[in-house]
Amino acid sequence: MSGWLTIIGIGPGPARWMTPAALEAIAAATDIFGYTSYVERLALKPGQTVHESGNRVELDRAGAALDAARSGRHAVLVSGGDPGVFAMAAAVFEAIERGPKEWRSIDVVVEPGVTAMLAAAARLGAPLGHDFCAISLSDNLKPWSAIEKRLRLACEADFAIALYNPASLARPEGIHRAFEVLRQAKPGNTVIVFARAIGRDDERMLVTDLAAADPATVDMQTLVIVGSSATRVISRDAGQPWVYTPRSMEA
Amino acid sequence: MSGWLTIIGIGPGPARWMTPAALEAIAAATDIFGYTSYVERLALKPGQTVHESGNRVELDRAGAALDAARSGRHAVLVSGGDPGVFAMAAAVFEAIERGPKEWRSIDVVVEPGVTAMLAAAARLGAPLGHDFCAISLSDNLKPWSAIEKRLRLACEADFAIALYNPASLARPEGIHRAFEVLRQAKPGNTVIVFARAIGRDDERMLVTDLAAADPATVDMQTLVIVGSSATRVISRDAGQPWVYTPRSMEA
Repeated sequence: MSGWLTIIGIGPGPARWMTPAALEAIAAATDIFGYTSYVERLALKPGQTVHESGNRVELDRAGAALDAARSGRHAVLVSGGDPGVFAMAAAVFEAIERGPKEWRSIDVVVEPGVTAMLAAAARLGAPLGHDFCAISLSDNLKPWSAIEKRLRLACEADFAIALYNPASLARPEGIHRAFEVLRQAKPGNTVIVFARAIGRDDERMLVTDLAAADPATVDMQTLVIVGSSATRVISRDAGQPWVYTPRSMEA
Repeated sequence: MSGWLTIIGIGPGPARWMTPAALEAIAAATDIFGYTSYVERLALKPGQTVHESGNRVELDRAGAALDAARSGRHAVLVSGGDPGVFAMAAAVFEAIERGPKEWRSIDVVVEPGVTAMLAAAARLGAPLGHDFCAISLSDNLKPWSAIEKRLRLACEADFAIALYNPASLARPEGIHRAFEVLRQAKPGNTVIVFARAIGRDDERMLVTDLAAADPATVDMQTLVIVGSSATRVISRDAGQPWVYTPRSMEA
């Protein structure tokens, strides 16, 4: 049997946002690797071997999945969202580059998925309808100075900005520092959205502005969207306001 | 009958990258609106009314779909990729904001999809595995000076960069001007990928660098990815090289 490794994303939560390609890979797998809370959401078949792991051992998990593929297993590595956006795909290729030469001949496929910012944007309207960027606030793997520099330049470029991994118990101060940078760089009426647990039962969205936003309410389940200068809010008599960034731009 | 409008994305091409949510919306629709080449890819049922249109009348198409929903129809508006990324969702909310007050009470839902850069990234490895931005080179709706400013700042921020709408018959010079900016701002060994018709039969990917890349080969079906300073190429004995951007960053 010739082994392979397919890296999939299960989207932000509901099965209706998971691609058929991801489901096909799971159905064909002998071995499923992933962070426990993602693997729990899958409907698996008898005989499939599950290798669950915590959130902090990405390179080990990637190596184990590569070893399985190399030994002839059909391995699927499960990410949330899209596996290529602040997720497992980069860890796998990092492991390959550092690992034994034989790993380079493994049949590795990445299946794209719906990443959190696209799902949050869809639930809000179209806040990422024009040029935008995605920045992770996690400073586990990069210095805070680099994050701050990117954030300042993203403000100067007037991108709409999606902030991933905005806060955790281990580093609760990151989101506060990010908001200090945003408040220095952008006006108080800049549109801010806190989108929590998008697509799940406890989904919660708050549309506010930079002057009023309270970063203390942001947790690791939250995706923060910062509007560009063009981002607009459409108020409605009933229901949540819509947020969008027009396709056109003034000179 | 109570009308609604759902805006969907069909992904970059193959049905296996289209979400179940998008398929459900199509199945429930009475009226399908969209650019001809997207609508042609759908499996429709007898009795569904198709409203095809060209690529350049986005606000008119949005208004027609809103009118249909307002009159009690179940309208689906079809985009390629993700409807919220350089696509129809922003046009709909722009139409709503400019349009009659009654449009604000329409039940409008946006379903996220797999946008071109995520599909291209997956086929290559994980070039968007760390902070990145998406810039449209179309200057139909924004001045070139704004595009150039964003591009310069994106280089300074050292984002991986996805360039959408890189070229067309009407404005073939944009991609050449963009490459002039890139060549001033970034070293010649910066990773460049031209990803054409991703997921379709005529898919073609070229992994090269800024010194060697020829922007004259880029057409409107091409998504260009520009690496950050950290983006790496893993060469292989057989098959296309993998491209990825590590999750970590040096100080």
